[in-house]
Amino acid sequence: MNQVTIHAPGTVANLVCGFDILGLALEEPYDIMEVRLLDEPRVIITSKDGFPLPSDPALNTAGAPLLAMLEELGRPIGFEVSISKNIKPGSGIGSSAASAAGAVVAANHLLGNIWAKEDLVRFAMFGEKVASGVKHADNVAPGIYGGITLIRSIFPLDIVSIPAPPLHVTVVHPQIEVRTSDARQILRKQVLLKDAIRQWGNIAGLVAGLMQQDYDLIGRSLEDVIIEPVRSMLIPGFDEVKQQCKAAGALGGGISGSGPSIFMLSRDLATAQAVEKTMIDIYTRIGLDHHTYVTTINQHGVKIIK
Amino acid sequence: MNQVTIHAPGTVANLVCGFDILGLALEEPYDIMEVRLLDEPRVIITSKDGFPLPSDPALNTAGAPLLAMLEELGRPIGFEVSISKNIKPGSGIGSSAASAAGAVVAANHLLGNIWAKEDLVRFAMFGEKVASGVKHADNVAPGIYGGITLIRSIFPLDIVSIPAPPLHVTVVHPQIEVRTSDARQILRKQVLLKDAIRQWGNIAGLVAGLMQQDYDLIGRSLEDVIIEPVRSMLIPGFDEVKQQCKAAGALGGGISGSGPSIFMLSRDLATAQAVEKTMIDIYTRIGLDHHTYVTTINQHGVKIIK
Repeated sequence: MNQVTIHAPGTVANLVCGFDILGLALEEPYDIMEVRLLDEPRVIITSKDGFPLPSDPALNTAGAPLLAMLEELGRPIGFEVSISKNIKPGSGIGSSAASAAGAVVAANHLLGNIWAKEDLVRFAMFGEKVASGVKHADNVAPGIYGGITLIRSIFPLDIVSIPAPPLHVTVVHPQIEVRTSDARQILRKQVLLKDAIRQWGNIAGLVAGLMQQDYDLIGRSLEDVIIEPVRSMLIPGFDEVKQQCKAAGALGGGISGSGPSIFMLSRDLATAQAVEKTMIDIYTRIGLDHHTYVTTINQHGVKIIK
Repeated sequence: MNQVTIHAPGTVANLVCGFDILGLALEEPYDIMEVRLLDEPRVIITSKDGFPLPSDPALNTAGAPLLAMLEELGRPIGFEVSISKNIKPGSGIGSSAASAAGAVVAANHLLGNIWAKEDLVRFAMFGEKVASGVKHADNVAPGIYGGITLIRSIFPLDIVSIPAPPLHVTVVHPQIEVRTSDARQILRKQVLLKDAIRQWGNIAGLVAGLMQQDYDLIGRSLEDVIIEPVRSMLIPGFDEVKQQCKAAGALGGGISGSGPSIFMLSRDLATAQAVEKTMIDIYTRIGLDHHTYVTTINQHGVKIIK
């Protein structure tokens, strides 16, 4: 076998109170990627969609991880990658991470699964570095592991899968651009100790709520007193969406990654659909183009299709 | 019944990475308290030990919670409390919290258990306010609930019991005084966002490790990059104790509450005893009087004896 087709899922990083340490994988949307083994040491990227992404592999979020993998492998082989992107770049649901995670899982499959998942996360972070200037794993880790993942530490890398009860996820992507690097820059470098304490109380509550399948505790813990107050200013309608979606029955939610997408968690499908209607109503009234998803948590991560 | 005798356990607050939000109850040491119902609206505190604690109930850590409870109750009754303290005030293992938790659990028992545990924590925090100037629950909550408790939020009060695997706790109390109020004052009001992120990764890891019974993850998560580097300077021998105890097999540990006691968690009794020997050796060499405990987690909190 020298060619594989995979689905690489969108992901929601941060999960409100877990900035830089928590993320979950979505059933939808996902990118479709074909990766072919080459017998020469190069990486070729071709795009089957209309997004203007760099084709130079060193600057491409799928290419950079493969170059890092090949350097560590030390064998004269290469990969040709063809990407059909459904996850819009800049949407805040892990478009760059999907390319990076998809590329390394596919390549590892072609190599006979010689790398552990933690190694794949390590390689995939080179793609995030290309995309945002910072190595972070809160999108690529859930993309590769599936489910909800905790990145306890980046250096050294320490990834923990967090079991969760069934959850429905509603996402709205208002069609404005928020660059991850800009969204990082507006954050203050220092935070109040009292805010940090409140935040780590919420993170501990969220992890406990997920593991104990306590939906109320999950809802109470979905509070961010540090990042959201700053970043939400970049997203028109954010406060209203959040408030109305909770009124419609959502457990809670907030900014997906660095935005502009907003996600909400619900206990059942009917609520998740009511939440979607709420989001659509608000952005229709505001007059902002938008796209919505009603989906669930993807438990398997990047999926080998053929 | 108008009189009750209880055991009120020592507690370890913070658990290294969970400043102000986590605590655990100890099997030993514990205070012994007798509480008697009075038919007049007053609180009388008598001490059966040599510690110079205030006998004015409004200034006493057992008295203030009872006054708050009586005010909310609105009935013309009172309590006489007699305390035999085994948990030395200022040791950092919840001496003030034991008095507060013991008093409210005993009083509630005499009243026919009309209050929920969360109410008892709310009353007991008046004792902590008297002791340290700040209402905090990370000692009184485990003292009342038993086990390991998360205080997700103080206002509104939100307490979550965190299941944990069997753990042995070794505590050393070097006989120097560190006042809780002083230990709070030396903390900076602002922290670096990158340190806060590292801290909440560790807290999430600790909660997940406890709930998944993953001892290695518990050990890796027992890291504090915010409070310990500042407060440990007040405790002679701290770095050596920590390093040597881990070398002796402890999973990890750190300052108990605001110190000066140091606690270490171990998987088994033999390791916990080796850790105790390590602590004794170090403080004997330094020439500092000290007292040690080898104990386990108390699962029931304040215990009604008769």
